[in-house]
Parts: sequence; C-alpha cells; structure tokens
Amino acid sequence: MATIVFCSVNKTAQSTVRRCSMSHLKRLASSAASHLTLSPSSSKPLTLLPGSRWLSRGCGVRFVSQGTAGRAAGGRTRKGALALSGAAALTAAVAGFLANADHFQRADMATKVPRAAAEKEREQEGDISQRCRGFMSPPVTDIGVLQGRSGEMRTRMEMLIMETQADFCNALQEVDGGTFKVDRWQRNEGGGGISCVMQDGKVFEKAGVNVSVVFGNLTEEAARQMRSRGKVLKGKDGKLPFCAMGVSSVIHPKNPHIPTVHFNYRYFEIEEEDGTKQWWFGGGTDLTPIYVSKEDASHFHNTLKEACDKHHPQYYPDFKKWCDRYFYIRHRGETRGIGGIFFDDLDSPSQEEAFDFVKSCARTVVPCYLPIVRKHLNDSFTDEEKAWQQVRRGRYVEFNLVYDRGVKFGLATPGSRIESILMSLPLTARWEYMHEPAKGTLEAEMLEVLRNPKEWV
Amino acid sequence: MATIVFCSVNKTAQSTVRRCSMSHLKRLASSAASHLTLSPSSSKPLTLLPGSRWLSRGCGVRFVSQGTAGRAAGGRTRKGALALSGAAALTAAVAGFLANADHFQRADMATKVPRAAAEKEREQEGDISQRCRGFMSPPVTDIGVLQGRSGEMRTRMEMLIMETQADFCNALQEVDGGTFKVDRWQRNEGGGGISCVMQDGKVFEKAGVNVSVVFGNLTEEAARQMRSRGKVLKGKDGKLPFCAMGVSSVIHPKNPHIPTVHFNYRYFEIEEEDGTKQWWFGGGTDLTPIYVSKEDASHFHNTLKEACDKHHPQYYPDFKKWCDRYFYIRHRGETRGIGGIFFDDLDSPSQEEAFDFVKSCARTVVPCYLPIVRKHLNDSFTDEEKAWQQVRRGRYVEFNLVYDRGVKFGLATPGSRIESILMSLPLTARWEYMHEPAKGTLEAEMLEVLRNPKEWV
Repeated sequence: MATIVFCSVNKTAQSTVRRCSMSHLKRLASSAASHLTLSPSSSKPLTLLPGSRWLSRGCGVRFVSQGTAGRAAGGRTRKGALALSGAAALTAAVAGFLANADHFQRADMATKVPRAAAEKEREQEGDISQRCRGFMSPPVTDIGVLQGRSGEMRTRMEMLIMETQADFCNALQEVDGGTFKVDRWQRNEGGGGISCVMQDGKVFEKAGVNVSVVFGNLTEEAARQMRSRGKVLKGKDGKLPFCAMGVSSVIHPKNPHIPTVHFNYRYFEIEEEDGTKQWWFGGGTDLTPIYVSKEDASHFHNTLKEACDKHHPQYYPDFKKWCDRYFYIRHRGETRGIGGIFFDDLDSPSQEEAFDFVKSCARTVVPCYLPIVRKHLNDSFTDEEKAWQQVRRGRYVEFNLVYDRGVKFGLATPGSRIESILMSLPLTARWEYMHEPAKGTLEAEMLEVLRNPKEWV
Repeated sequence: MATIVFCSVNKTAQSTVRRCSMSHLKRLASSAASHLTLSPSSSKPLTLLPGSRWLSRGCGVRFVSQGTAGRAAGGRTRKGALALSGAAALTAAVAGFLANADHFQRADMATKVPRAAAEKEREQEGDISQRCRGFMSPPVTDIGVLQGRSGEMRTRMEMLIMETQADFCNALQEVDGGTFKVDRWQRNEGGGGISCVMQDGKVFEKAGVNVSVVFGNLTEEAARQMRSRGKVLKGKDGKLPFCAMGVSSVIHPKNPHIPTVHFNYRYFEIEEEDGTKQWWFGGGTDLTPIYVSKEDASHFHNTLKEACDKHHPQYYPDFKKWCDRYFYIRHRGETRGIGGIFFDDLDSPSQEEAFDFVKSCARTVVPCYLPIVRKHLNDSFTDEEKAWQQVRRGRYVEFNLVYDRGVKFGLATPGSRIESILMSLPLTARWEYMHEPAKGTLEAEMLEVLRNPKEWV
C-alpha cells in the first residue's frame, strides 16, 4: 500500500529532514548533504532548492516548494497532496486524480517543482456569460453561480476546461467536416459532465472530448483510505467537501499516418473542518503514432517544451520522463506511444502560477496536434498499414483497460458514467497472435522507439 | 484482502463450529441450527451433509466433503484449498488457479460438493507412448518420465489435457478446413506449454487451444501471501514444490450466428515438508453467443448438465450459478455470455472421483460446441449483425482484461508467455459510443438475457 509521507526540509541546501514518517525516506534523507538522490532509478542527483519540502507516496519521492504551495482560505500550509483513492470522482478525467497514487510506487518518479522563474502570462478572463457562448454546451455549473464566484479557482478552472473543450472540438470539426455529438450528464451526488463525441467521421474514427465537474462530500471509505496513506484530514462531522474537475480527450484518426492524441487537465479541491482548502493540478498531453515521424515527434515535443519552459526549465524534462513511465504497457515492454508530458499533484509554487502553467498546457493542445493532422490529411495508405494501426489500437486498449488508473478507478466506482470513461477506446482494434514486424520495416522501427523511449527535442 | 478460513463442522446437522479464524464466519455459524444460510445473497439455506466441513475465502463460504478430500501421499487431511496468489503459474490456463481467491469474496458462492453418488466411469488409460501419437505435439513432460509414473495424478491429468487439446483442435480443423499453428514453449523455471492457434480461418476468426504444465518451487512471496490468507504451509527450507497444469481455449468464429466458446480445465499439486500433497481441480466451459438461440443454449447447458449429473446432482446447478457470477462484466451490468459451468478448489469426494468428473467435463467440450458450429455454418448474415458481433467482442475484451483473474495474474507475472495469455482476445473488436440496441430487436433480446441470466435446462 502506498503511504503519503510528509517531510519538511530546511530552507538551505544543507537540508535536513525535520519530520518524516517513513524509514525509506529517512534513509534517503540521511544521506542528503547538498544533494539527494531521489530514487534508485534516478541517476542524476537533484539539489534541493531553498523553500522546498519533501513529499512521497510509496517508494517515490518528490519535492514541492514550501512557498505558498497549497496555502488557501484557511491559511494552513498544505501538508501534502492527497491520495484520494475511493473518492467520488466519476469519469476518467476526474478519476485521473487518483492515477498518481500507485504511480509513485512504480515509477520512482522524482519531480522537481520549484517556483516558476519565467514571467507569468496573465489570462484574459473577461465576462463569464460572454465566454460561455463559445462553449459546446453551457458549463456544468450554473452561469449565475460562476459569475458570483468568478475569482475562485474552481470557477476559473471550469472556464478553462470548457474553453479547452470548445477550442479542440472546433479545430477537429473544421478539419473533419463532421459534428460532435454533445451529451450533458448529471451526477446524482453533485455535478456532472459534458461529453463530446464524433464517431466514424471523415478524418476521425473516434474523437472524444469530455469535461466533468463533480463535487460533494468524501465518503467514509475515502477518508479511511486517506488515513491509511498517512494523511489525516479533519472533516466536519466526518464529512470532507470536495470538488474535482477536468477535461480529457482521446482522438483516434482513420488514417494510420495521423497519430492518436490524448490529453487530460484536472484540478482538485478539498476542504477541511477549519476551512483550509487542499488543492492540486494534474494533467498531460501525449502522442501515439502508428509510424515514426521524427518531424511530427519533434514538433509535438517542442511545442510542449516551449509551453513548459515559460514556467520552469525542469518541467519539460521531468514531466517528459514521467509520461514515458506512466504510459508503459508493462507486459509488452512497450510504451503506449512516444509520450509527451505527464504530471500530478502540482501545488506549487503558488496556485496562481500552477494554474498559469496548466493554462499554457491546455492552450497548447491545438498547436501540438492540429498541424500534424493537417500534414497527413491526404496521405495514402495500404491495407498493411491499416492492419498495423489496428494492432497498435489493440495495445492502446490493453494499456487503458489494464493499467490506466483513471479508467480502472472509474470502472470500479459504482454510478460512474461508463460511456464517458470508455470513450477513450478506439472504434476498432485487432489482436494478432505472435505479431512481430519483420526486421527493417517501418513497423519494426516504430516498435523499437516504443521499446526504447527517445528524446525528441 | 481475502483470508482463507478453516472451520471444521460437526458431522451432525446440529453443526457447531469447532475452529474458525474469522468473525464473519463465526457470526454465520452461530446462527446455524439444522440449516446455515451461507451468504447474504444466498436465499436458499443449505443443509449440512454429514461428513462435510466449512471452507471460506473472504466473505464467501462453501463446504466440501470431509471424506477423503485432499488426502494424499502424506496422509494428512487437507485443511483447505490454497489461494496461490503470486505463484509461478505462467499462462492464463495455469493462472486460472488463482481465479477463485477473490471470486469468493465477490460472489458469495455456496458450492456443495458431497461424495459422488453416481457410478464412476473408469478411464481407458492405455499405453502412454501410443496415446501421445494422437497429440498436437509431444507432451510437455518427457514421455519416458510419464511412463515411469503412469499411475500418478499429474501424469494422468497431463495426458487428459493433451488429449482434450488434440480432440478439440481436430474437431475444429475438420469443420474449418484450416490447420492449427502449433507452438511449443519452455519455462525457464520448469515446464512449458503447447499453444495451438488458428487465425483468420474459413470458419474461425481466431481459435486458440493452450496446454501448460509448469512446476518448480513456490517463491517466498507466494508463501507469504498464503500465510496472509490464513494458510500455513511448511516447506523444506522454505521451499514448496508445486506442479500446475491445464488446458484452456477460446474460439471466436467469423459468422455472428456461431457463438464464441471458452473452456479451461486445470489441476494443482503442492508438496509440504512432510510429503503431504495438497491438490485440487478447477475448470469450466461457457458459451458467448451474439444472438440468442434457445435451442443452442439448451443443447449446450443440457450437455453440460448430463456430464455433471453423472457425478452429483448439485454440480450442474451450483457450477452454473458460479459461472454466471464469475463471467460478469460489472461496469456493464452484463454477463459475458450465457454461461455454462465454472468451479474451482474441487478436492472431493476423492481425487479419483474429482478426476473422473473433470474428465467427463473435458470430454464434453466437443459435443457441447461442435453441433452448434455445424448448425450455423452456412447461416447468412448482414453487416449490422457483423457489427453487433464486433461490439460484443469489445465486451469480451473488457471482461478478459479488466476482470479475468487468470489474465490479470498472468500479465502481472514476470516471464509469463503473454501471447498465450492474450490469445483469448478476438482478432477484431469494436467500441461504439453509447451503443444501445433498439427495443424489440434481436440485439436487445441478447442484451436482456445478458442482463438477467436465465435457466436453460
């Protein structure tokens, strides 16, 4: 079982561990002088920045800024991100909040999240009702309610995910000529979602862009699980109000020369008895081509890197590695695709700066993907290339059903909207016994890249 | 976590629990007079037969005969079936041994396995080398070794599973006109398997029939897991020699009017320090039609019932229920197909009688399925019917990757032969967003049956 460990670290490079509930961390920390090797798989020792603190789940270790991280209404410093297993997240997007818990155990990921150094871009947050007119559907939360709390992060994030959904859907519709089917759904316990799906279009075999905004109280089970992970949260009469929201998308094109893309950006808030709000962001964008195109890969990764670099030079390299580790089909010894970025539990350097970063990522989805789609729109392809695409689709299904923690959690949560969770599955897929591309083929080249993740920047 | 609970029960109907390590069972038992309600979901109280004892994993409870059950070389009475999670089983067939552990937790299955009343059929076990000539490949174990221990159960079972593979493959080849590709594979730690696959045949889209025979020592991890389930096994220097074998098969035809079939029969042996051999059988056969055919379903279930009834009148009703519960796609609220039989941990009334029953089941595979194949061989079908088959194939993939404990265990076991585990997946599958057949259609009729399992006999 994963355990959340909370450790404070001195604000000097000569860091010492003040408080630590796990011997593993203690061992790591005791070897720390000016450097700390964060995990067995991390060959590069990371220097602790001033104002950072340690945080771990299971075996993995990361550190986050101690500045204003997670400080909210109640004024108490947040002690760590929550491993909210068993909570009320309803769709894969929201369930994705859970994705990190065991990930830390497996990936031994060391993620460095210091204060953003670059000058922060300020969002243009105009009139809410005017902005809503461009959405695929009215937002999940009533517009009047959003207007009444326009300065709050949950409002600003809901507007961002609705905007991201609309921008991406519009760009896809333009290139395909088809129209998204828009489904609004409600969650009995609070909140709901908007699922946009285009199926069997001209360009896209299946394209799904889902928004969900759910809220309510954490169940006793969820609270119990949190305690077992070392996190004690004080709720009013045992109840912990929470709010979770996200946008997630998977696009499976017809042409095997156009890659599949996936992205997901999400935000979580939980309120303790004294009014303290715990909050964090998560997300990522990754590409799954059927054939290697260095040009496409380089465009995709460079676009992500540019978005990351505006906020911190370590974001791209760290989140790129995290992505390769997360989207890994262990039983095949292959990554799902050529990666991109993936991050979770982002609660630093400040809520404003973390949101700015997530906004940059979300606004990068269209420029990451659409130029690649347009480039290959009229590429011809053979039956063999289509068959190889179908085999890769089978692997996509394997990852999503066997490993993706968001999907697994969603399927296991009673009352989940299964169709929104499984809209990530392709329209068609194929499993050939003992399929192995011949040496020297383009298919073998793809497999080689999936077996040995590359640097594309 | 599931815990194995061992309870002895008096040989009178006025049963009292002598020994029980779980309060849940104690509560159940304390309410027992002449009847015991075995689980909250079991509406029919079962009367304890003389000579029976209690056995439970997790919340589920079942009882098995106390007769000669599990008594072997060492002469000690077996105290319970093993939940061998983390053991060295290598393929889905073998991993299937594990399938029951959590199943008991979920299904609250009450299975009655008294002494076989019917007269037992004696197998015709002739010369081993002569019998081997009819196999798809020489057996996994060297023929000389098999001849040297021809009376042992592991030899007799290996001959049975090889024979079952050959009989079924030959029957399928005859009807298809195609030929099975035969792969022999070895397991570094001991044993190996024979995978027979026919892909893209005339009748069958993908047909896999797999045998595996693996042996070695249980790892410390496996032993530890067993202890956590309440079972203490004494090994020599901490090592527990084991042997596991099975035949498993999934057949996906092209024509949507020919159902998919799956079967799996397996045997497990484990030796304790004092030479005591723990052993048990497991298995089942189930059908997944794309359209309801009462005639087919009735033929399939009646053939299974006849095979079961020769051994005990409760086998068919109990194992039919167990099958419906096991092959359940929880997130869809549907069974995978129309069921058949499923059982595990069968270690009574004697090894001879249990083997006789498994033999009857294995020999029933061809008469269960082939008449249905032949009947629909020339049925015409529409594109819509083919598309519905593809959607159902998607559900098959969902069950196998999300719920099937054998597959899950196999994928999680390093060194597993992935291609043999995943040969159960169809060649092609489809996921349509919000697919729901229109009322009154044959597709809706199928769904109705999957949502409300029926009695077919």
